[in-house]
Amino acid sequence: MVFQNPDVLFSVKAQALKPSAIEEIHKLLEVPGLRSLAGAWPDPSVFPAREISEITSKLLAENDSPALQYCSTRGYLELRQTLADLAGQKDGIDCSADQILVTSGSVQGLDLACRIFIDPGDVVLVGLPSYFGGTGTITSNGGLNVGIPVDDDGIQVGLIEEQLFALENEKKKVKAVYVISNFQNPTGVTLSLTRRKKLLELAAKHRFMIFEDDSYGELRFEGQHLPSLMALDNTGWVVHFRSTSKTFSPGMRVAWCTGPGDVISKMELAKQFNDIATNTLSQLVLLELIRTGAFSKGIDQNKAYYRSKRDLTLGLIEEHFPQEVSWTSPSGGFFTFITLPEGVSADELLIDALKHKIAFVSGSSFFVDGSGMNSFRLSYSQASPEDIKEAIPSLGELIKTRLNN
Amino acid sequence: MVFQNPDVLFSVKAQALKPSAIEEIHKLLEVPGLRSLAGAWPDPSVFPAREISEITSKLLAENDSPALQYCSTRGYLELRQTLADLAGQKDGIDCSADQILVTSGSVQGLDLACRIFIDPGDVVLVGLPSYFGGTGTITSNGGLNVGIPVDDDGIQVGLIEEQLFALENEKKKVKAVYVISNFQNPTGVTLSLTRRKKLLELAAKHRFMIFEDDSYGELRFEGQHLPSLMALDNTGWVVHFRSTSKTFSPGMRVAWCTGPGDVISKMELAKQFNDIATNTLSQLVLLELIRTGAFSKGIDQNKAYYRSKRDLTLGLIEEHFPQEVSWTSPSGGFFTFITLPEGVSADELLIDALKHKIAFVSGSSFFVDGSGMNSFRLSYSQASPEDIKEAIPSLGELIKTRLNN
Repeated sequence: MVFQNPDVLFSVKAQALKPSAIEEIHKLLEVPGLRSLAGAWPDPSVFPAREISEITSKLLAENDSPALQYCSTRGYLELRQTLADLAGQKDGIDCSADQILVTSGSVQGLDLACRIFIDPGDVVLVGLPSYFGGTGTITSNGGLNVGIPVDDDGIQVGLIEEQLFALENEKKKVKAVYVISNFQNPTGVTLSLTRRKKLLELAAKHRFMIFEDDSYGELRFEGQHLPSLMALDNTGWVVHFRSTSKTFSPGMRVAWCTGPGDVISKMELAKQFNDIATNTLSQLVLLELIRTGAFSKGIDQNKAYYRSKRDLTLGLIEEHFPQEVSWTSPSGGFFTFITLPEGVSADELLIDALKHKIAFVSGSSFFVDGSGMNSFRLSYSQASPEDIKEAIPSLGELIKTRLNN
Repeated sequence: MVFQNPDVLFSVKAQALKPSAIEEIHKLLEVPGLRSLAGAWPDPSVFPAREISEITSKLLAENDSPALQYCSTRGYLELRQTLADLAGQKDGIDCSADQILVTSGSVQGLDLACRIFIDPGDVVLVGLPSYFGGTGTITSNGGLNVGIPVDDDGIQVGLIEEQLFALENEKKKVKAVYVISNFQNPTGVTLSLTRRKKLLELAAKHRFMIFEDDSYGELRFEGQHLPSLMALDNTGWVVHFRSTSKTFSPGMRVAWCTGPGDVISKMELAKQFNDIATNTLSQLVLLELIRTGAFSKGIDQNKAYYRSKRDLTLGLIEEHFPQEVSWTSPSGGFFTFITLPEGVSADELLIDALKHKIAFVSGSSFFVDGSGMNSFRLSYSQASPEDIKEAIPSLGELIKTRLNN
């Protein structure tokens, strides 16, 4: 029998699937001795390993523990009730347990939302720049990402209506806006309250969904908490994605989303045919962490830890980067975003940097229109303070050299 | 602002998403005092809770344990190497770690395969009857299920070619055959060696994929192990889905699939935009269970446990069911499938049975062509021996009453 290649059978979507920048970043991280400001994973030193271990032992010692059996697709009921309460207390979101779907990471939530809303060719408006995992999930569902510029107050909501009319003229249907409302990946900027309200008005007026990715919202270092779009919404056009990957453990793969009951029910059906249910043990451990107060205490520790690294990073940038360069000043989260003068290539700077065993992510990965060549993301989440202290002054020197050439 | 319903924005696929029989089964199970032969979950009494607890404590006590951090999308390398070795030793599958993708349950594997192979309207041939989670996953990806009858030797491979020509005449493209090769859900039958070989020939000749769902293969109670389609394949048209839900813990959500390198790479990309990665702790616990031999020992215990329940079930059926009824005699797995005389409704029998607090799943859920009204599935996996002893004689009486009316 002759070997034949099953590639001939690939679907249209499969042909469009391209490796994301994530893969490239991981390859970068394999260089020994690298001082990396590329990766955006949380720092394992702040994971509550001891608490997780203790709770797991307790759960698995119980007779008839549900921890190892299938969970319902919607998620463990007591966890959903607890998350609904928490959403009310912390963010003023008025929702019931039935409006919550527990997911295997927040990207799964976004993927399920895309499955139930996006037909091939439908448009999703996204930030320029925006997290490539989010835009990649949209593409992998046949959606078309169209960019709206981001400034220090987040995605420029004032430009949306014009874009809607332009797309309508092209007979394109806008189904959603994908927005990372707090400490956005990659810029670290936060959507202002005024823009939140305006975006909700536009959604109700023009009938599009808001996919609110709120993976970083709990990691606010200073300033006032802004209510989520979900909390402000009274129209039912928002699905709100939360993550525990930054505040509990990404390896445990437990997240949740909140939305209108009909939408959550439909997403639950889609999940049933995607992975049946989220890991039960992870759900029970998270529930117990919340109940004991360890979850909330952990978030406080996380904030202090990442704030100090943010301060270190921004201080060193201020000191060592040339004045032609600008950067964002995040009030929370993991990232600052650097803009080099027009025409200076971040990709070329990265080549220089890697020779000095320093890594970051070039900005172009985050721009769905292929722009942003003169920008890059620095993440202080995983890098040790020592690495940050070594890397940023050197990077400043490399930028200066490149500007002087 | 007026409340508007986001349902208007649902995608074509979302509109096709219907609750599966799984949900109905769970509702049945909520009746107190029910003796249920409906559910097909494994019995928690055979989960290795103590071993999982001990391994977790050990893993989480390590400094720099990767257990709580993100894992790579492909899956933990040492686990993949171990699974590749195991596939070689146990089943004669010649594959490398690169041909393995770790998934969050085997349904996720099938879903990812559908994503990369199925365009809307593409046909997948499935057994009549076949597992509704599998056929539902195909539908949720826009695929069209077309049934091929199943007999005691599994799906009737001899009828496939004729169906292919008929579908070709209708301008329909057959992309895959979905087959549960061992102790099929819902019938418990196993695809014969002759049919396995013939199916592989047909796949290579007509260029379609074989999605081989092998969730029950390890639970063989007697008779000779048959090599999987994957083991017999030398053409590269098979993706083989394995589960640990029956032999380790469904709540831990760890499974894997094996296939040609190109296919696995594409599925990995699709997974990156679905849930990023599988639970890391679950992967490390499974790896350690395999290494210590506890996994293999657990499978032996499982086999003995489910075999005794199978024997009890079939013995009682033989004794109490009337002669007009026929049933399958599985050599492994969780199910026997009952066929009532033509025209006798299993749905009506179920109504009688529920009045006596006995539950099963009507066969029609498993037939994509809407047939099978006179059949039902009995599962002995979750029911206690006491419940089996109570339920089957009563069910026999109910069938006799219905036949005499």
